[in-house]
Amino acid sequence: MVTPFTAGGDVDAQAIGRNVERWMQAGLGGVVALGTNGEAALLDEHEAESVVEAVRTAVPPGRLLIVGTGRESTRATIAATRRAAALGADLALVRTPSFFKGQMTAPVLVAHFLAVADASPIPVLLYNFPGQTGVNFSSETVGTLARHPNIAGMKETGTDAAQLAGFVDAAASSTFAVLVGAAPGFYPALCVGAVGGIVAAACVLPELCVRLHRLVREGRHSEARALQRLLTPLGRLVTTTHGVPGLKAAMNLAGYEGGDPRPPLAPVSPVVREEIRIELARVLEAA
Amino acid sequence: MVTPFTAGGDVDAQAIGRNVERWMQAGLGGVVALGTNGEAALLDEHEAESVVEAVRTAVPPGRLLIVGTGRESTRATIAATRRAAALGADLALVRTPSFFKGQMTAPVLVAHFLAVADASPIPVLLYNFPGQTGVNFSSETVGTLARHPNIAGMKETGTDAAQLAGFVDAAASSTFAVLVGAAPGFYPALCVGAVGGIVAAACVLPELCVRLHRLVREGRHSEARALQRLLTPLGRLVTTTHGVPGLKAAMNLAGYEGGDPRPPLAPVSPVVREEIRIELARVLEAA
Amino acid sequence: MVTPFTAGGDVDAQAIGRNVERWMQAGLGGVVALGTNGEAALLDEHEAESVVEAVRTAVPPGRLLIVGTGRESTRATIAATRRAAALGADLALVRTPSFFKGQMTAPVLVAHFLAVADASPIPVLLYNFPGQTGVNFSSETVGTLARHPNIAGMKETGTDAAQLAGFVDAAASSTFAVLVGAAPGFYPALCVGAVGGIVAAACVLPELCVRLHRLVREGRHSEARALQRLLTPLGRLVTTTHGVPGLKAAMNLAGYEGGDPRPPLAPVSPVVREEIRIELARVLEAA
Amino acid sequence: MVTPFTAGGDVDAQAIGRNVERWMQAGLGGVVALGTNGEAALLDEHEAESVVEAVRTAVPPGRLLIVGTGRESTRATIAATRRAAALGADLALVRTPSFFKGQMTAPVLVAHFLAVADASPIPVLLYNFPGQTGVNFSSETVGTLARHPNIAGMKETGTDAAQLAGFVDAAASSTFAVLVGAAPGFYPALCVGAVGGIVAAACVLPELCVRLHRLVREGRHSEARALQRLLTPLGRLVTTTHGVPGLKAAMNLAGYEGGDPRPPLAPVSPVVREEIRIELARVLEAA
Repeated sequence: MVTPFTAGGDVDAQAIGRNVERWMQAGLGGVVALGTNGEAALLDEHEAESVVEAVRTAVPPGRLLIVGTGRESTRATIAATRRAAALGADLALVRTPSFFKGQMTAPVLVAHFLAVADASPIPVLLYNFPGQTGVNFSSETVGTLARHPNIAGMKETGTDAAQLAGFVDAAASSTFAVLVGAAPGFYPALCVGAVGGIVAAACVLPELCVRLHRLVREGRHSEARALQRLLTPLGRLVTTTHGVPGLKAAMNLAGYEGGDPRPPLAPVSPVVREEIRIELARVLEAA
Repeated sequence: MVTPFTAGGDVDAQAIGRNVERWMQAGLGGVVALGTNGEAALLDEHEAESVVEAVRTAVPPGRLLIVGTGRESTRATIAATRRAAALGADLALVRTPSFFKGQMTAPVLVAHFLAVADASPIPVLLYNFPGQTGVNFSSETVGTLARHPNIAGMKETGTDAAQLAGFVDAAASSTFAVLVGAAPGFYPALCVGAVGGIVAAACVLPELCVRLHRLVREGRHSEARALQRLLTPLGRLVTTTHGVPGLKAAMNLAGYEGGDPRPPLAPVSPVVREEIRIELARVLEAA
Repeated sequence: MVTPFTAGGDVDAQAIGRNVERWMQAGLGGVVALGTNGEAALLDEHEAESVVEAVRTAVPPGRLLIVGTGRESTRATIAATRRAAALGADLALVRTPSFFKGQMTAPVLVAHFLAVADASPIPVLLYNFPGQTGVNFSSETVGTLARHPNIAGMKETGTDAAQLAGFVDAAASSTFAVLVGAAPGFYPALCVGAVGGIVAAACVLPELCVRLHRLVREGRHSEARALQRLLTPLGRLVTTTHGVPGLKAAMNLAGYEGGDPRPPLAPVSPVVREEIRIELARVLEAA
Repeated sequence: MVTPFTAGGDVDAQAIGRNVERWMQAGLGGVVALGTNGEAALLDEHEAESVVEAVRTAVPPGRLLIVGTGRESTRATIAATRRAAALGADLALVRTPSFFKGQMTAPVLVAHFLAVADASPIPVLLYNFPGQTGVNFSSETVGTLARHPNIAGMKETGTDAAQLAGFVDAAASSTFAVLVGAAPGFYPALCVGAVGGIVAAACVLPELCVRLHRLVREGRHSEARALQRLLTPLGRLVTTTHGVPGLKAAMNLAGYEGGDPRPPLAPVSPVVREEIRIELARVLEAA
C-alpha cells in the first residue's frame, strides 16, 4: 500500500483507513505497510509508527498486516521490527541493506537476517529487490535462511521466473512462502511455486489480482494467462515505468486515495496521467 | 547444437552426423546449427557451410533444420541467409547485430530485420539474447516485425517470463512462434505462451526436454513443474555458468560427441567436469 | 572521516576527537563528518548529532567542517542540514537521493537541490556518487545548480576524468569548487580542474595527500604523478575493494582509531588485514 | 580512420587515399585502419585487405600504419594478423574477443594474446574497450602481457584515468606504450602516462589533436587543459553519442570524405548533423 499525505504533506491516517477498508472488502489477504511503494524511505520513524497504527485499526482478524522494517544497520532493523510487532504487525518484511552494496556478501546478508530473525517477536519475510537495491540473494543464501524457524518466507521482486523458482526449490520446506512482487510476473510466478503476490497493481485493481490467484489455484491456466495479459500493461505503468507517482495517479483515477508523492518524488505529468487513465479504462472494460 | 572439432581443430562433420541422428531418435523437433553454442562466431564462412551440409544429411523430413545466419552487417546477413537456404535450411535464425550496440535503436533493428526478411528465400526467426549482446528488443519492435509474412517467430534467450509474455502478446498473431532459449525458464515460458524451446540442455538430455514440452501441452502442470525443477541445475551449469565449454563437457559425459571448444575458449577444469558429472548422474537417476 | 565505535557499538566521541586532532596536525584543510565512509547510513539522528559535536570541538578555526546531510526526502534533508548548521558545520555535503533511482530525473534532482540550497543556512556541496547510488548528474544539471548562490561546489566520486572535467567546465564559475572523491583519481582530477579532494586515503595517510595537492599547485607534475602512483594501490584497497571495513583496518594499522564497522558491515578477514598491512608498509617506506 | 564507401556501398579506396594524405599533412603520427570506427565488423575479409592496401600506399615512411586484426577465434586473429603484416602493416591492434564475454577470464585472455603475439610477424597492440565489448583487462593481465617482447603497447578506450594509469604502472616497462582511445580523456591520459592517443576526433580535427599532444610534452599544462576543454564536446558527439554515423557526418562537414555508414548503421538525422555542424564551427572559430 501507498502512504497518502494530506495537502500539508503529512501522513493522512484517515485516508489510509479508508483505502485499507476497501482493499479488505475486495478480498485481499492482507496489506503491506511501509514497503517500497509506501514511500517508507521518505518517512521519519514517528510517521512510520502512525502509518502502522492507522492500518492496524483497519485490518480485520484473519487478514495479515505485514510491515516493512528493513533499515541499513542491523540494530536499526531490529529496533524497527520490535516497534512494528508492538504495534500489532503480524509479519515483518525486511529488505536487504543496500547502501554499502559492494560489501553485501552472502555471509554478511546471512548474519544480518539471522540476527534480525533471532531478535524479532514476529515472523520475518526476506525482501529481495535487486532491480532497485543492486543486491541479490543467491539460492544458497535463501536456502540457508529458510531453515530459521522465524523466517517465514520471502518477497521476490522481479520477473525472472527461473530465479524465483530457484528460491522455491532452495527453500526445501513446504512452509517457506515465496511471494512475487511484480504484477507482470504474477501468473508465471504462481506457476513455478509462488504462493501469492505483493504487487502494486493490487492497490488499484485488487479484485482482478484476487481473481488471478484463484484461477491458478483452481488449475484454470488459460483463463489465468488471459487475465495476466490484461493486467500486465497497467502493472508496468504503475511501477516499472512511473514508480510511486504512477501508482498514486492510478489509485486516484480508480477512486482510491493516493494523493501526491512526497518530494523529491514529483506527481506524474498530465500526459502520463492520461496514459494511465486510458489503460485503466481499457482494463476495467475488458475485465 | 554444438560444433564438434577434430583433434586437429577442424570441424568434425562425422561427429555432427552421429549427434544429430541420436537427437532425432530422442524425438526433438529439429536442430539449430550455427547458433551461439555452435561457436558460429569462431568459424569461418567455409566451415559454416560444411556444418550445414553435415546437419542437412542427418535431419530427416518432417524435422526442422534451423541455421544461424546473423552477421553484423545487413548485407553479410543476407548473404549468409541465402547460402543457408541454398544448402537446405528450413528457417534462418538471425541474431540482433550488437557490435555497435549503442546505435542499435528500434528503427535500426526494424530496418535490418525487414531487409533480411525481404531478401531471404526461407522464413526468418528473430533471435534476442540481451544477456550476451547488450541489445534488447522492445515489445513494440517485435510487434512490428511479426507482421512481416516472412518472419515466422523468434527465439528469446532469457528467463524473464514477463518479457517473453510481452513478446507473445505483442505479436498478436497465432502463427508467430515464440521459442524460449534458456532451459531454466522452459516451463514458465511455455506457461505464458511460448510454443517450444531452443535450449542447450537438449543437447545433453533431449528426452527430458521433449517430455517437459509434452507435459505442458497435456496440461499436466505439476509434473512439468517437477521435471523443470530437476532439469534447472544442469541447465544452469551447461550455459549460464560454464558456457560452451560446460555444454561440451556435459555432452561428452552423456555419451555425445562434444569434444573441446575452439580457442580462445578453453575446456572446463577437471573440478568443473566433476561437478557436471555429479549433477548429470543425479538427473539421470531421478528422471 | 570514519565514525569509530566503542566496544559496545556506540559512537566513540573521544576517539573522534583524537583522530581529528592528528588529521589537522597533518595539514588537511578540513574534515567531512557523516559521509559515506562515516557510516552515516548506519547511524540514527541522535548519533549523527553527537558525531558533529565531537568533530566541531576538534576542528580549529580556519579549517572546514563539512557535514553530510543528504537524506532520501527533501524535507528530511533540509531538517538535517539545519541541525548541522546549528551545530557549527561550515558546509553541508548533500548526496543525491537514490532509493527511488528510476525517478531521479534531472528536473527532480534540480528541484531537490534548489529547495535544499534555498533553505540551508550554510553553503551546500552537491555529492555525486554514481557507482554507489546508481544516480548520476549530467553536466547540464551541474551547470544549472552551480548558478545558485548557496551551492558552493560539489564532490564527484569516481575516476572518470572526462566526467569530472565536464562538471568543471559546466559550472562556468571560478567560485564553484569541484572536489574529487576517489584517491586513485586524485592527480588526474587536479589536472583537469578539481581544486581539492575528499578522499578516504587521507584518513590513513593525510600527509601524502596534502603533499600531492601541493605538488600539483606548484606545477611539479612528474613528482605528483609519481606520488599518485605510490598512493593508488592503497587507495583502492581501502574503499573500492574492501569498503569501510578496509578503511578502518588501514587506520588501525596506521595508528589511528578506526575500530570495527557497525553490522551488517563486518571487519575484514585476517588475510585482507595482512594485505593492507603490507601495502601500507610499502607506501610508508617509499614515501 | 573510418572506411568510406562508394554510392554503391563498396569500399572507396580512392577516398581512403585522399583522407590519409590530408591526415598525414596535418602531422598525425600514423593511422589505424580497420578499427572500431573503421566499421571493420561490417567488412568481409576481402574488403579488409583492400582497405589496408589503400592506406599503405598513402602512409609515408616514418609514420605508422596500424591495422585492426582482432577476431573472435584465436586462429582467425592470427590469420588476419599475418595477412595485415604481409600487406605492410607496422603494428597489429588486437581487440579482446567478446562474443563469449562470460568466458573471457584472465587466463583465457592471456593465452589468446600470447598465442597471437607468438605468431605475429609484427608487434602487437592490445585493445581494451570495455564500454563496447563488456570485457575488461585487469592491471595484472596487462602486466603479464607487457612482458612479451612482441607486445608493444595497448589502446585503452575509456575515460577512467585511474584505470589507464593502472595499466601504465602495471607495465613496468618504459617501452610498453599506452595509448588513449577517447578524445574527451586525451589530456588527463597524457598526464598519467599515456604516450599518445588513437582518437576519432583526429579524423576531423587532426591539427588540434597534434597540438594538444605537443602542449603536454612541452609541459604547457594550462594551455593543454584549455584545448581539451574546447575539443571535448565535439569528441563526445562523434563517438559516445552518435557513433560512427556521427563521426562520418563530422568528417563530411569538415571537408573529409566520410560518406555514409554501412547498414544496419544509419546516417545521422538532419537535426543531429546540424548539431554537429554548429559544434564544429564553434571549435574552428575558437581554435
